[in-house]
Amino acid sequence: MTILDKVNSPKDLKKLSIGEMTELASEMREVIIKKVNTTGGHMGPNLGMVEATIAMHYVFNSPVDKFVFDVAHQCYPHKILTGRKEGFTDPSKYGKYSGFTNPSESEHDQFLIGHTSTAASLATGLAKARDLKGEKGNVVAIIGDGSLSGGEAFEGLDNAAALGSNYIAIINDNDMCIAENHGGMYGNLKLLRDTKGQAECNLFKALGFDYYYVDNGNSISDMIDVLNKVKDTNHPTVVHIHTIKGKGLKVAEENREMFHWIMPGTLDRDINAPMPKIENYDSITKDFILKKKSEGCPILAISPATPGATGFDPEFRKSLGKNYTDTGIAEEHAVAYASGVAKAGARPIISVLSSFIQRTYDQMVQDLALNNSPAVLLINWAGLASGDATHVGCFDIPLISNIPNIVYLAPTCKEEYLKMLDWATSQNDNPVSIRVPFGEYTVTGVEDNTDYSILNKFKVEEQGRDVAIVAVGNFFSLGKQVKEKLQRELNINATLINPKFISGLDTELLDSLKSNHKVVITLESGILDGGFGQKIASYYGNSDMKVLNFGAKKEFMDRIPLNEIYEKNHLTPELIVNDVKTCLNTISCNV
Amino acid sequence: MTILDKVNSPKDLKKLSIGEMTELASEMREVIIKKVNTTGGHMGPNLGMVEATIAMHYVFNSPVDKFVFDVAHQCYPHKILTGRKEGFTDPSKYGKYSGFTNPSESEHDQFLIGHTSTAASLATGLAKARDLKGEKGNVVAIIGDGSLSGGEAFEGLDNAAALGSNYIAIINDNDMCIAENHGGMYGNLKLLRDTKGQAECNLFKALGFDYYYVDNGNSISDMIDVLNKVKDTNHPTVVHIHTIKGKGLKVAEENREMFHWIMPGTLDRDINAPMPKIENYDSITKDFILKKKSEGCPILAISPATPGATGFDPEFRKSLGKNYTDTGIAEEHAVAYASGVAKAGARPIISVLSSFIQRTYDQMVQDLALNNSPAVLLINWAGLASGDATHVGCFDIPLISNIPNIVYLAPTCKEEYLKMLDWATSQNDNPVSIRVPFGEYTVTGVEDNTDYSILNKFKVEEQGRDVAIVAVGNFFSLGKQVKEKLQRELNINATLINPKFISGLDTELLDSLKSNHKVVITLESGILDGGFGQKIASYYGNSDMKVLNFGAKKEFMDRIPLNEIYEKNHLTPELIVNDVKTCLNTISCNV
Repeated sequence: MTILDKVNSPKDLKKLSIGEMTELASEMREVIIKKVNTTGGHMGPNLGMVEATIAMHYVFNSPVDKFVFDVAHQCYPHKILTGRKEGFTDPSKYGKYSGFTNPSESEHDQFLIGHTSTAASLATGLAKARDLKGEKGNVVAIIGDGSLSGGEAFEGLDNAAALGSNYIAIINDNDMCIAENHGGMYGNLKLLRDTKGQAECNLFKALGFDYYYVDNGNSISDMIDVLNKVKDTNHPTVVHIHTIKGKGLKVAEENREMFHWIMPGTLDRDINAPMPKIENYDSITKDFILKKKSEGCPILAISPATPGATGFDPEFRKSLGKNYTDTGIAEEHAVAYASGVAKAGARPIISVLSSFIQRTYDQMVQDLALNNSPAVLLINWAGLASGDATHVGCFDIPLISNIPNIVYLAPTCKEEYLKMLDWATSQNDNPVSIRVPFGEYTVTGVEDNTDYSILNKFKVEEQGRDVAIVAVGNFFSLGKQVKEKLQRELNINATLINPKFISGLDTELLDSLKSNHKVVITLESGILDGGFGQKIASYYGNSDMKVLNFGAKKEFMDRIPLNEIYEKNHLTPELIVNDVKTCLNTISCNV
Repeated sequence: MTILDKVNSPKDLKKLSIGEMTELASEMREVIIKKVNTTGGHMGPNLGMVEATIAMHYVFNSPVDKFVFDVAHQCYPHKILTGRKEGFTDPSKYGKYSGFTNPSESEHDQFLIGHTSTAASLATGLAKARDLKGEKGNVVAIIGDGSLSGGEAFEGLDNAAALGSNYIAIINDNDMCIAENHGGMYGNLKLLRDTKGQAECNLFKALGFDYYYVDNGNSISDMIDVLNKVKDTNHPTVVHIHTIKGKGLKVAEENREMFHWIMPGTLDRDINAPMPKIENYDSITKDFILKKKSEGCPILAISPATPGATGFDPEFRKSLGKNYTDTGIAEEHAVAYASGVAKAGARPIISVLSSFIQRTYDQMVQDLALNNSPAVLLINWAGLASGDATHVGCFDIPLISNIPNIVYLAPTCKEEYLKMLDWATSQNDNPVSIRVPFGEYTVTGVEDNTDYSILNKFKVEEQGRDVAIVAVGNFFSLGKQVKEKLQRELNINATLINPKFISGLDTELLDSLKSNHKVVITLESGILDGGFGQKIASYYGNSDMKVLNFGAKKEFMDRIPLNEIYEKNHLTPELIVNDVKTCLNTISCNV
């Protein structure tokens, strides 16, 4: 029987000796490595936090004492210790628990989290409510050094420091973001590590915190010592711990960016073998940027600390040199910075995930759109998907397309994407956002000669009658399937339209459809509310045109299989054609 | 002839002696005081920056050297020195220039700005483009100590510090936000002021900046000395200057919060005379919160550093004590903090302006909605208005109403507002946002007994036929006028609906309208795109109901008179009734 077998809750942990906990750490590490290599997931962050998490549960009394994990991508050890170890030891249960904290799984999880830099604030709220209600207990926020680069973390810490009561921020410093860290503050973290926390110039003290430093955050006993010191503190306290990202898995310690999050089976492959060169939207984006640079264009690729997720691999970043900026996890800064870069005549391209651009609504409105700076935003991972609710990119159409001045484009294939990129980085009239197709990579072989400076011009791909299908971006192929099915089953030769522009309507085309169409259907991969289709419904509101909007209902979708999402929202050719049939029947009944 | 008469551009300034510049400062101060007291505007921030701005234009060479003013509410001296003094000396030109920087006014203005904490990022962008293009010149960001509390400022400074080339951040420290400062970092600013910049623990050095301190930032010669030292620096540098907010106007120096922004004629009134107690939405909000507190409810009022704008005056804040949090200008933190407070069982109410809540889209989605924390957001200054484009609250409906789980309510009168407040702060099921009516204060005298836990239940105020008017929140009175006009001119007894809920539809009611209505019109005070009316158009897309959506076109509105906005967007009873008439004529032609 292993130690892990005996630990089913934090209570069990408290009976163990340091030696047993050290053994437990090894066992936990082993199951984490095996599970993550099977399912994919966050490897480095979790391996680094095993000892600290054991010490936290040993010293504190969760859930009376409350832990808030920033991003929560380092919560696997916490899940193992709080009744969910089966999700790591039993392959048949590998999918049972999410990769982030989730209160519906356990009373030991305070929040459903997946975005970065929020824990300091959330924890301050828990502490304030505790104080208002006259309750007791420690509130502990666990924040990685990478997450500190996000402004919300700074706001949270700045406010926490003024709380005047118990609050403990564990700064888990592994000298690494997802990729390497960027930003001036990392010089101070290095100084603090180099001086074992003794340097006078101290970011955390400057913010008003009491400060403790632990040089070996992977030592259970050192961690227990410091946490015992700060437990029940009556004032805001930072515990700055130095840990090793990927600790205990040599290849992860040596390849920290690659092993931040891994695909299934990564440990079973030769990670040094050259990756097969596959052409996809990432690769053609990179090729385009490098070509621009080689032509002398002052192009600037910008990533808010997620270069890997958008294909900006280390080799590409190295090739770009000063034409690349990693802003840290600072999307707000990234957008305002891009506005400045564009205003001064260089050519910024931010590549970012749909769910992360959410952090920049105000910067898109104020810094970018109001100033009409010709910066370019590439929105990746945009569309309905079976992911964590925190990461599904289903809100970017309502988010971006309703902001004045920003042109939001939805290419349907390589050729359109490249032409849009070329136009976007050559014009001076508008901020341009491109919804990079998510999922299949489509090459038509036909060059796109569209002049995108003629805004809001939809493309009629196939002219028909009676029914018009307006299919946005990565739902264009669904549109084609619907057209075929309408022909086959209802003998309707539908018109197929590729709108290309999500942020405005081609009213001339929409008007022309009135003469020989009865129904317009819109297809978009995202939530319907506030989106593209509703604008078309509104436009036709005073006419006889029937409009059917297809997209997703406004709700969070947490790890729902994509086919379920599609079935539920009538996003299959069958269900769409049925709805069209019903609509047409109603019309003929009424006539 | 005054010195000011002779200064028409920065070039003229460079010929002056220190003595003449000191005289110029007095003259500038005089015209600023007179103008601001006539038109209203930012008083304290501008009076504090007169000397620093003179020194900046004396030492640097704008617009080759570029100034980026954070918030830009302190740019009046800059405007006076850059060819726009007529806007301050000639009462007939008082309205000619905006209260913020605006590139369309002058080449000396880099950006149209009005939101806080963005200058560090925008300036970093200018500097990066300069470096990429191989150009020269200083880039100078001017940032108030209050603005430092916004996370974007931290992100910007953190990135600026890593730029590796010329960048100068002038930190204008007057020990004041709009109200007093809140946050741990202000202890460090005080330490730096107290030690004349000598303290080892230094927030700016911790971020990686070279650092200079000026104890008297209102001394032209001291400012010239330090700026000469840092001019053409080859690395990121902070110049921390201590200035007096409201400098040179005794009453403003002594009443710094009150004189941050003043109404016209403030100097001509007895500011110590008790304010007449007027009942309005602000006052009943305060009374409600105080009553909750007195009943023992763990209520927490939260302001992101704009208490005055939402009526949270010093007396109210004092009465609340620990039941009040000013987060600094940290809207993101405020929302996440409120989520934490609500999760732990206390009752947070954030009161914020519509245009400032824009900074929290991601926090509303992730921290609040996804966690379904029952926090309350009061959205003030929401609706079409004749303001600066940066401050018009016309985006909050698309912003908030398309987020799952958040209930967005639009009261039309005192009674509804109070009932909604009461419900919102008593329930545990959803985050609730309330669009506080902007403009007229309506009291019906009829208690509202609605059970708001029955979501998305619209209220039929008057049952009619043929035409239904769905009038949201502060456009309800417009809806009433339209109803009356329809009766009078077209003899139509229209149905008048007060939807109350902006974030969802009463589909039962909408279905029932089909039996005896031909047209539904929607009225909302905000941009139409992504808003409320388009959802209704979409819902009726497959039916014969005609839908006319009334609201504003998607565009920025910068100081446009409200009647022009209304005329242009058909938001007057006349134009709406005309559009209804046209629509009805089309229907009868087709039948």
